[in-house]
Amino acid sequence: MTQSPAYAAQAADKPLAFHAIPRRAPGPRDVAIDISHCGVCHSDLHTARSEWGGTLYPCVPGHEIVGTVTAVGKDVKKFKVGETVGVGCLVGSCGHCSACAEGLENYCENGFVGTYNGPATAAEGGHTFGGYSTHIVVDEGFVLNIRHKGNLAAVAPLLCAGITTYSPLKHWKAGPGKTVGIVGLGGLGHMGVKLAHALGARVALFTTSPGKEADAKRLGADDVIISKDAKQMAKQANRFDLIVNTVAAPHNLDVFLNLLKRDGTMCLVGAPATPHPSTQVFNLIFKRRALAGSLIGGIPETQEMLDFCAERGIVSDIETIAMRDINTAYERMLKSDVKYRFVIDMQTLKDEAKAA
Amino acid sequence: MTQSPAYAAQAADKPLAFHAIPRRAPGPRDVAIDISHCGVCHSDLHTARSEWGGTLYPCVPGHEIVGTVTAVGKDVKKFKVGETVGVGCLVGSCGHCSACAEGLENYCENGFVGTYNGPATAAEGGHTFGGYSTHIVVDEGFVLNIRHKGNLAAVAPLLCAGITTYSPLKHWKAGPGKTVGIVGLGGLGHMGVKLAHALGARVALFTTSPGKEADAKRLGADDVIISKDAKQMAKQANRFDLIVNTVAAPHNLDVFLNLLKRDGTMCLVGAPATPHPSTQVFNLIFKRRALAGSLIGGIPETQEMLDFCAERGIVSDIETIAMRDINTAYERMLKSDVKYRFVIDMQTLKDEAKAA
Repeated sequence: MTQSPAYAAQAADKPLAFHAIPRRAPGPRDVAIDISHCGVCHSDLHTARSEWGGTLYPCVPGHEIVGTVTAVGKDVKKFKVGETVGVGCLVGSCGHCSACAEGLENYCENGFVGTYNGPATAAEGGHTFGGYSTHIVVDEGFVLNIRHKGNLAAVAPLLCAGITTYSPLKHWKAGPGKTVGIVGLGGLGHMGVKLAHALGARVALFTTSPGKEADAKRLGADDVIISKDAKQMAKQANRFDLIVNTVAAPHNLDVFLNLLKRDGTMCLVGAPATPHPSTQVFNLIFKRRALAGSLIGGIPETQEMLDFCAERGIVSDIETIAMRDINTAYERMLKSDVKYRFVIDMQTLKDEAKAA
Repeated sequence: MTQSPAYAAQAADKPLAFHAIPRRAPGPRDVAIDISHCGVCHSDLHTARSEWGGTLYPCVPGHEIVGTVTAVGKDVKKFKVGETVGVGCLVGSCGHCSACAEGLENYCENGFVGTYNGPATAAEGGHTFGGYSTHIVVDEGFVLNIRHKGNLAAVAPLLCAGITTYSPLKHWKAGPGKTVGIVGLGGLGHMGVKLAHALGARVALFTTSPGKEADAKRLGADDVIISKDAKQMAKQANRFDLIVNTVAAPHNLDVFLNLLKRDGTMCLVGAPATPHPSTQVFNLIFKRRALAGSLIGGIPETQEMLDFCAERGIVSDIETIAMRDINTAYERMLKSDVKYRFVIDMQTLKDEAKAA
């Protein structure tokens, strides 16, 4: 067991602050990682403040982790010391259910182990601690190869925002000849636009903010539609094969369901704290449409997405911050004042620990 | 143009009563049909009372029609005088959109022509009149072959209740090795149980009425689950590949969504006048579940369903009524006091017309 500097919330109403956490000594199948960067996801904030309930304290968020392998257990086959690797939202699963057998650990029938707020031994602190820390030790089955050359800060958000949008795009077959809508241009949405475009689909971004048009087109959107403008929306009726809706705030889903072709699907990837207004059944029935959901992605698909992005030089649009600025970043994130993802430079935490 | 005895509502708040309607002389592609039976669908009542709005009066409902061909136009190839035929919910569509090209006239991009309350020429009465009448004239493209031997009264409900449940069962691949739930044991639900069973799926019926268990098992259900019993429902979690929900009254959909396996779908085939309570997004996201809808079925699939049922001797469980008892039947239908479909014996209307 070693101690790792980290930032933790000690209660739902407390800001994050410096806090040392235990990290286990690498077991035979473990990979020890020196964290260079960690992305800041909305889930981090929801969990730190227990907005979905059930948060265990101290809470160390962070599940968009990149870093360098510093040690491997004797049975580790896939990773070597010095390699660049990533860790996403999962650090464990049962390994024997039908979902795990299919490489869909994210849908583990027995519940996956979250990178933070998941079950852990008492010696490890009783629950898992995430990537707002200098080091982490993870089973090799949940460690990803990072093949990007440089710009690792901008790779970090692929581990959650990237796979969360890539997985439904692949599952519902976004690609050439398909028309895909992305609702919302935040951390998830901007990755959705980039990935849908890279997959060869025609991409429309739906946003409530007219100011985002130029940026959306730069990111890969063919069309930008102001979702508050009923006239613009009416023109899009029955046009979409797939809409990936990244907006977690409760909103009218019918205005988007109406834009789906026959047999089209709108997939929700954001979870509001209170339900969306109820949808009209006729909108589903009259064109055999579906309203679905999707949760992150499995480990094999996450690796596929990372390799897909590495080959094409796709990364996230980010703003790098120091660890000590995390509470300010949360406040700015709540105001959507970020293009499009904060990423913590973990050297700042190492320096803070050294100075202390 | 000929006159056909019929039963019509003259306004939303008026009972149905005897009324003569025009029927066109058969054109080159038309089939003239002497109606022997017509099923009584909930949509008939909704439309007669304009509960969904937009009803044109006089309103002659009825879209579960069986009868005998009495004349055919010179270009008609598929039907001969004397044959037993059926007509369902559609009597026309644009014929050139992508849905029509795929035989999915029910999803016609330009709007299908409903068997009643659809567009028609002024000479034909300005809007289409349905099967609560002694005769009908229909384009051969919307006439179905009935290959059942006898018991035609019980065949009639296949034209709506049958295809409305068969189509989603086939679309979402109900069959051997699949577990299918049917919610509600009414006109649609009892056909859903029979058809899912005949397709080889394991079938569970969900009902709020404990008294329906024996009947559901007789119809083909392997399991009967009382949906108000939280303990029984909890045991069914994550078990279903597909749930076909036939209940049109607003109800809690989450209790059923929770019973779907990963990648399972709940398909709604009933449309409530007011929306269902909103669903929890987490229930969709955590297992990549979908909430979908389905509307009747196309003509080729309706013929497939009729042939499937004819080969296996599948018909509806019905109670035959006289045309003059339709208003009483509506009241009983509202109390679910029918096992499981009323079918009008059209001889009673012919006799009434003769006596008048």
